[in-house]
Parts: sequence; structure tokens; C-alpha cells
Amino acid sequence: MADFLGLVAACLTTASFVPQAILVIRTRNTDGLSLYMYLLFTTGIAFWLVYGVMIGSLPIIIANLITVVLASMILTVKLMNTMSARRAIIKPR
Amino acid sequence: MADFLGLVAACLTTASFVPQAILVIRTRNTDGLSLYMYLLFTTGIAFWLVYGVMIGSLPIIIANLITVVLASMILTVKLMNTMSARRAIIKPR
Repeated sequence: MADFLGLVAACLTTASFVPQAILVIRTRNTDGLSLYMYLLFTTGIAFWLVYGVMIGSLPIIIANLITVVLASMILTVKLMNTMSARRAIIKPR
Repeated sequence: MADFLGLVAACLTTASFVPQAILVIRTRNTDGLSLYMYLLFTTGIAFWLVYGVMIGSLPIIIANLITVVLASMILTVKLMNTMSARRAIIKPR
């Protein structure tokens, strides 16, 4: 029963980043997204992945491998937007 | 070593929602946030919390208790914005 709940939890939290990644790639709008959140979160998920490898837990490895890819995609678009916004402030046109 | 990495991972992923919650509460801008992400994510974290209680893991309970509060705050603002945007479409003024 606990294992089943853990599996449902892992599926939900991993799957939740799919609509966010689709939204960000489709609209390129990352105004409401916190850069610090995605920096901390992506790093944290990378740590979860290493933790999963170290304890040999396939569910932790798979869930965090998918999440790290999705979170990295969101972080990349956010970083691109942040950098182009900073360039626009330095060189207005 | 694995336990330490797991602890760092838990701190990073839990802490990551603090700047996002602050940004959303301060700006009220949730345009770039996916409603489906926060619906799935908050539900998933609630499942992780129940899972933590069932297996008696204090780190899982604490990390997910903090995250469920932060994610619920972000979800609430997103839901309020989504509903007021829908009302604006039905009754433009």
C-alpha cells in the first residue's frame, strides 16, 4: 500500500513538469517563473539522481532522470530570457 | 555519503519553492506558470506526505510538509488569476 502511494506520488510529481515544459517552450513566457527556483530545483533533482544511483533505486533514478531533463529545458528558456532582458537594459533599441 | 547527498537533494528541492512562492505573492504574475503543473505537483506532494507518514520517514514528512504549503500558495494565486481571467472573458469591462 505504501509502495503504491509512493509510486503514484512519483508519477504525479514527475508528470507535473510536462505541462510546464510544454507551456514554456510553446509561449517562451517565463516572466512568472523564478530563476532561483529552477536553479535550486534542477541542482536538487541532479542530487536526487546521484542519490538514486548510489542506493541503486531504479524508481528514484527513472523519476529524477525524466524530471532533470524537463527542469533543464525550463531553466534553459528562463536563462535565455533573463540574459536577453539584461542585454536589452544595457543596450536599449 | 548517500544519506548526505539525499539530505542535500531534499533541502535543495524543498528550498527551491521559496523564491517561486515569494515571486508569485509579490508580483501576482502567474502567466508563465502552468495550472496543470501545480495541480499535479501539489497532489503528488500530498501523496509523498502520506507515503512518508506510512513508512514513518521524518525527512520525507518534513520536506513534503514544507513543499505542500509552498506549492498550495502558488496554486491558490494561479487559480485566482485563472478564474478572474475567465470572468473577464465572460463579462468584459
